Formats: sequence, structure tokens, C-alpha cells
Amino acid sequence: MDPRRALKYAGAERTRFVSELKEVLRFPSVSSQPQQSDQVRRCARWIANHLEHIGLERVRIISTRGNPLVYASWQRAKNRPTLLIYGHYDVLPGDPLAQWKTPPFTPTVQGADIHGRGAADDKGQFFCHVKALESYLRTGGLPINVKCLFEGEEEIGSTNLLPFVERNRQALRADAAVISDTRMLGPGRPAISYAQRGGLRAEIEIRGPRQELHSGTFGGAVLDPIQALCEIVAALHDDRGRIAIPGFYDDVREWSQRERDYMARTGPSDDKILNDAKADHSWGENGYTLYERTTIRPSLGLNGIVGGHHGPGVKGVIPTRAVAKLSFRLVPDQDPERVARMLRDYVARITPTAVQSSVKTLSPVQAALIDRNHPAVRTAGFAYKKAFGAYPVFIRSGGSIPVVNAFQEHLGIPAVLMGFGLPDDRIHAPNEKFHLPNFYRGIETSIWYMAAFEKSLRSASGAVQRKQEWTA
Amino acid sequence: MDPRRALKYAGAERTRFVSELKEVLRFPSVSSQPQQSDQVRRCARWIANHLEHIGLERVRIISTRGNPLVYASWQRAKNRPTLLIYGHYDVLPGDPLAQWKTPPFTPTVQGADIHGRGAADDKGQFFCHVKALESYLRTGGLPINVKCLFEGEEEIGSTNLLPFVERNRQALRADAAVISDTRMLGPGRPAISYAQRGGLRAEIEIRGPRQELHSGTFGGAVLDPIQALCEIVAALHDDRGRIAIPGFYDDVREWSQRERDYMARTGPSDDKILNDAKADHSWGENGYTLYERTTIRPSLGLNGIVGGHHGPGVKGVIPTRAVAKLSFRLVPDQDPERVARMLRDYVARITPTAVQSSVKTLSPVQAALIDRNHPAVRTAGFAYKKAFGAYPVFIRSGGSIPVVNAFQEHLGIPAVLMGFGLPDDRIHAPNEKFHLPNFYRGIETSIWYMAAFEKSLRSASGAVQRKQEWTA
Repeated sequence: MDPRRALKYAGAERTRFVSELKEVLRFPSVSSQPQQSDQVRRCARWIANHLEHIGLERVRIISTRGNPLVYASWQRAKNRPTLLIYGHYDVLPGDPLAQWKTPPFTPTVQGADIHGRGAADDKGQFFCHVKALESYLRTGGLPINVKCLFEGEEEIGSTNLLPFVERNRQALRADAAVISDTRMLGPGRPAISYAQRGGLRAEIEIRGPRQELHSGTFGGAVLDPIQALCEIVAALHDDRGRIAIPGFYDDVREWSQRERDYMARTGPSDDKILNDAKADHSWGENGYTLYERTTIRPSLGLNGIVGGHHGPGVKGVIPTRAVAKLSFRLVPDQDPERVARMLRDYVARITPTAVQSSVKTLSPVQAALIDRNHPAVRTAGFAYKKAFGAYPVFIRSGGSIPVVNAFQEHLGIPAVLMGFGLPDDRIHAPNEKFHLPNFYRGIETSIWYMAAFEKSLRSASGAVQRKQEWTA
Repeated sequence: MDPRRALKYAGAERTRFVSELKEVLRFPSVSSQPQQSDQVRRCARWIANHLEHIGLERVRIISTRGNPLVYASWQRAKNRPTLLIYGHYDVLPGDPLAQWKTPPFTPTVQGADIHGRGAADDKGQFFCHVKALESYLRTGGLPINVKCLFEGEEEIGSTNLLPFVERNRQALRADAAVISDTRMLGPGRPAISYAQRGGLRAEIEIRGPRQELHSGTFGGAVLDPIQALCEIVAALHDDRGRIAIPGFYDDVREWSQRERDYMARTGPSDDKILNDAKADHSWGENGYTLYERTTIRPSLGLNGIVGGHHGPGVKGVIPTRAVAKLSFRLVPDQDPERVARMLRDYVARITPTAVQSSVKTLSPVQAALIDRNHPAVRTAGFAYKKAFGAYPVFIRSGGSIPVVNAFQEHLGIPAVLMGFGLPDDRIHAPNEKFHLPNFYRGIETSIWYMAAFEKSLRSASGAVQRKQEWTA
């Protein structure tokens, strides 16, 4: 149980580890495309087999109403604490294919990076822990107890995982959870995310004429549903970049100057964020830095729109319908369900009488805050220092990992967001990659983290007790 | 050359005529889809062979930079006038396929209708003239000279036909043109269109970030191109349904109360138009009837929009671009090129600095007016009365047949818009159909028209002379 033996093993096996990472990246385990559900299942089986192969126990593929969960544990470290390791093996689609330099599901090493959909989000990152576990299990055993929970629906809102966690509080009991699905500030600049925005997805559908109409014959007498949709979408923001839904900002928490100063000291600058986005121009709410706009301020993005004839060529028609897909990013203390109601009411109110609208909302996620003084979080700082040579900064995330809330609420444990991604990993975009040095150091960080986990929890007076209080 | 012999022949051959119409409807001769260009060519060859088969002469397939023209003539009626017959064999795509009750390119007779893409627009309608020609040619010959010109690019703006007409004034010389590509007011209520709106198509493209961005990480700091596009599209109309592009209405001709009274007497009511559209609510410019809004007032419709992830499921990204396709319908005395400039200037001015926009315009068509007192037009009234038992009303059309202008301008002849379609034919929409009684009566109308054509031109004092003046 000496971390040095595990570290040595991990160092010697790097080449094989990369080959195995390639194997798991090869599955197009796209959760948002029902036609890929077979590949999602194959990916889950591969992971389950692999966990068994490296020596984990009680390996199970757990069916849900959607994609399966993969569970495994190792609980032979008597009287020692338990770490819950979470990751997600589902990925976003590989489109637009034409923009990929290498095929999204043909993982390719180029220089110090491995390219492929899911390389950083999240297969490459959770694989760091898998390989850390293997390194211990092959060199004498783990210093702590672990439970692994890998899901296949993170990119579509963890719809089935959240009730699963609630129903299985006992089985999932642990002292802390670790999740590697976030970013560092740059190479050699580790970061722990202590806050994440919540979210809500929505679809607005506008229905116009019952059948497509000739735009010459009827143009000027019948409202075009695309036009109505555009007017409604345009009315979701005011001309200062703020969301124009009445009441939307009512519950948004205002942060103290002290917290904002801390963020300014530790977080990325406007230039850094624009540079990461490869964008020339910023946009958004006045009075806030870009870091603040993307973390402590809510936002509303349009993820997709479609209506009428959008292929090559032209078709002079008034279409029957048009649809926009959008996603809110929410902050403390906004309630996603309340935002859903406000959106529905507002859209209903501004829909012109000449068309019909409907609003579908899904994947509500509350924003989350993680106590950055919790010993399980502070131990992550030690582990990063050992592996990367630098202490992490504490940053806020703009996105959400839905399970973080469920771990806090139902299991009463913090989620330690120990990210190994880099800002230019192009997650959710073509040419996603993972920096291989971060893969190796991620494995080392996980090894050091497990080594220090027990001591830190034990020495933190009252920490375990405090946890017990939370679950009560 | 007795119309009665031709009419008798046409009556006896109806069943075969419908079979032949089915043959031409079977070609997916979709001009807006480059992948169908082979089918377009096969359709042109079928028509050319058919024209030769029925006894027309000088049959030629004329290559253009796009889809071929089919030309044929019969000029054995010495010292008699010449009628130019125009039609288009290209059609719109058959999508959305799911909404068709019978496959779009499997023509099917149901009750008194033949269903299929192009049944009314325009294969079924030009086929009326083809079968009228056959009926004469098989029973002794034609009473006049004819030239047939069928094109394969009407639905995409007749881009190659228009310069062809200009270059071939001599070869296309005729005394009038007849075009059956418009609608009657209802069964038994024939109509001649004496005005058509012009048009201009445009594509607005908005480009945002260079690569897709995670909407959690960057949402709130980077302008979403879909949002920018929606704001721009929304700004194309004001809140009273008028087009908001500065200067857009400057050249719009105001019509006399006398003309508007005439339109109110002869044209469809608001209820009729809403009923034809199967729409519950009208929309548009205040102060004008729906008939006026769709004929003497310009309009701007959105034919398609696309951006980001629009398939099933969700994808939390800020996309790189979004595109809207739109079409103006223009009226006298608007210049499509000037409208194109105004659109480009306006979009450039209202594009937020955080994104880039570009505007592509195509298919400019000037609005057209046809002298409803021209003898060739008045003869159509006689022919309708003979075949349908009713004189036609004179109506304005909302759409455009681009070649009408070219015939007026380059050949100096009026286009007689002798429509056989019905308002519920669902042209440009799923389940397009053509009413078979109108097919039969359309053939009879064409037979009567040709029979009366010479006499009308000859008796109309100065008519031929007047035509000569126009070309000068």
C-alpha cells in the first residue's frame, strides 16, 4: 500500500495505459443519439470487464430506464474511509464531422495529445482513477476503500443517475466523492472547482400553418413560424445582454466584494477566457468580468435552431413549424423549476396570436457550491502538489456535473472536482483532445490522493462526525 | 384543323393522357437538389421524345449552364400567327416525406385528383397544352404556328432561361406566349392572372466563434450566433408586420381606389384566402385586405433557418454559425437589385460587433403587369368559356414566373397566364395534386384557344402593329 510502488508501476505501464485509453475512446457512446445506444452498452461492458480485470470487486452493470451504470468496489481496507469515484463514459456526437482533422472515434496520438471525442470529457479523465486503482491493486492493494460509479447519461442531464443515488444512499455510502471532469487553468496550473452553475434545457416550438404554403401565394397574409420564433428568441435578451424574462434575476445571489476580489485574484482574466474561446469579441452583461459572467452570473445560450428548408438550394415556402433548443446556466439561488415556469409564461405571453407555441423543459440542475475547506478537498491540494509540483487554485466552473448536487444532498458528502483537462481541450467541439502528460500526472495525483485520503479525514477533527450530521 | 375533331380525339384519349402524365410525374426532377440533376436530364429527354412522338418538329434539348431546355415547334401554318407555349418540368423537393400520404414521385389517382409532386406545378398544367397539340396534330394539323419552350429551372429562378430568351429573340419570335402555371379561383371559376409579384431570395449567415464552444464554460461571455441571427431576423419586420428595412417602401406603387375596388370585386375574400391556407389567423400589413397583402404589397418570408445542433437530443454548445434563407416578394416599381443593396446595408448595420454577418442575394425578379385588354389575353376568356362554361376573372398573383418579364421585355409579347390549378392543390407542399377534370378541361381550353388565336389577333385592329412597336 505504498504509493511509491503504485507510482513506479504507473510509470512503467504508460504505453499500455494509452493503448487502453484508445480502446475506450473508440466506442461512439453518444448518449444524445438513440441510434447509438448499442455502442453505449458495448462501452459499458468494456469498462465493466476492464474494472474486473484490474482487480476491482462486485462489478455490476446496472440497468436504468436509459443507459446503464457501471459499478465496482474494493472494500478490503477495514476501518478505513471510503472514496466514491464518479465518471461518465457517454460523449457528445462527433459532428460536425467535416471539422475534425482525425475521425472522432479513431483516437490518434499527435505530439503530446491524444485526439478523439471523449478524450478529455470524460473518458480520459476518469481513466486516470481507473489506472491509479490498477497501480495499487497490482502492487499490494488499496490504502482505502473505493466505490466506482460510471454513468452513461451525463451529457443528457444524468436523468436516471440522480434518482438512483437517492434510492441507494446506503449502498453508495462514502466519505467523499472525487470527480475528474473539469479543467485546470493551464499546463502545470491545477485547479479545483468549488462551484458549478446549474442548468435547464428547453425547446421552443412554433407551429404556423397546418401545411407548408407557397410563399408567393400567401406571403404577407400568414405569419411565418420562423419569423415568429426569431422574434421570440430575440425577446429572451434585452439589448444590454441581460436575460429579459421577467423575474429571472430575482433569486440570483449577489456575491460579496471579498468573494469577487478572490475570484479576480485566482480566476482567469478576460483575455485568457477570450483566448481559450479563440474569440475576438466578448459579449454579455455589463459590470461583470468574463469569469464572473460565466460562473456567478446566469446565462442563456441557443444550442440549435431549425425550420423550413435548410438544405442546399431554395424552396419558396412558409413552413409549418420551427424549433429552437436553448440552455440556461443558473446560479445560486435560482430554482430551475421556477425558471422553467417563468420561461413558459413569458413565451406564452409574447407569442403572436397568428401562431402557436409550446415550451418543453428538461434536465433541471441546481447550481452547487462545495466547501473548499473540507479536508477531502484540501487533500486534493496536497495530491496535486505531489504530482504537478503546484498547489491548485480554487475556481468556479461555468458548466454543471449534475451528480454533484445529488452527492451533496443524498449522500451528504462533498464532490472533490479534481480536474485534469486543459482550457484548449476543445470539449464538446471538433478535435477534442487530452494532454497525455496530464493523463500521466492525473494517475499520479489520484495515487497520492488515495494515499493521503485516510490520514486527512482522520486528522480533520470532527470531519467524519460532521458528515454524519449532514446525512441525518 | 377543326377544333371539334381535336376535342373529340382528346375526349376519347383521356385514360391514356392520364397514364402519360403519370410517366412524367414519376421523374424526381428537383432543380434545387444538385444530386437529382440526372433525373432532371432524364425528364427532359422523356419530354423531348414525347414531343417528337406527337408530331412536333425541330425538337431539341438545349444545354445550359444548368438544367436543359426542351424546345419544339410546328410552323406549317403559313401566314398565321405564332403562339409560344411555356412550361417548366422541374419541381420542388418531396420533403418532408413523412407528411405525404402517397410517395411524392409515385403518382396516384385518388377520386378525381392525381397526387404527386409537380402534378399542378407545373407538369400537369403544361401537359394540357402538349395534349391539345397532340389532339390537333393527330386530326389534321394545327390552326396556328407554335413554339414550345419547357425549362428545368423555374423553381430556382430561371437563371439560365432569362439570358437565353434575351439571346434568342429571333428564334423565339411569336405573337403571344401562353403559360399555364397559375390557379383558378375554384372549380368552375377560371381566372387569368394579369399581375405577378417579383422576388429576391437571400441568405443571411452569421459566424460566431471559430470552433464550437462548451456553453457552460463560455455561456454569458461569447455571443451565440443563433441569438444574433434571430435578433437580425426579428429586426427585418416592425411590430405592425411591415418590413423594417429603411427605404424598402420608397418605390412601392400605390394603386388607385378604382383598381382596389376592382380587386375587391374580382379577387378572393380574406376568408377565402385563410381557408385556402387552412390557417386560423391572418397576419400582415394593416390597411390592406389579404388579397392586397399578397399581390400589390411586398412581403418577406423566412423559408428556412438552421444552426447548431438541431437533431434529436441535446448538445450544450455555442455553435460557430447559423443561416437563414428568406425570400422577398416585390411589387411595381421596386427594383430587386436595389432591395438587395438595402438588405445588405441594413444587415451589416445591425449586426452586433461580437459576430460577423454576410448576405448572399440571388434570383432577382421584377414584378410584372400584363395588359388585360390585349387580344391574346381576351381570347383566353373565350376559350375558358367554351371549356369551363364560365368566363375567367382577372386576378393578381402573389408569386412569380420569372420568364413573364423576359417575354414582355425581350420578345415584346404578353404572357397569357391561363391557369388550371386550384387553390387547394397544395403546390410546394406535401400531397400536391391536380384536379383531373381541370386537366381535361385545360386540354379543351387550349384547343379552343388555338382555334381562336388567329382570328382574335387578326380582328383586333392594330394589335399586331402594337406588338411591333413594343419590340422596337
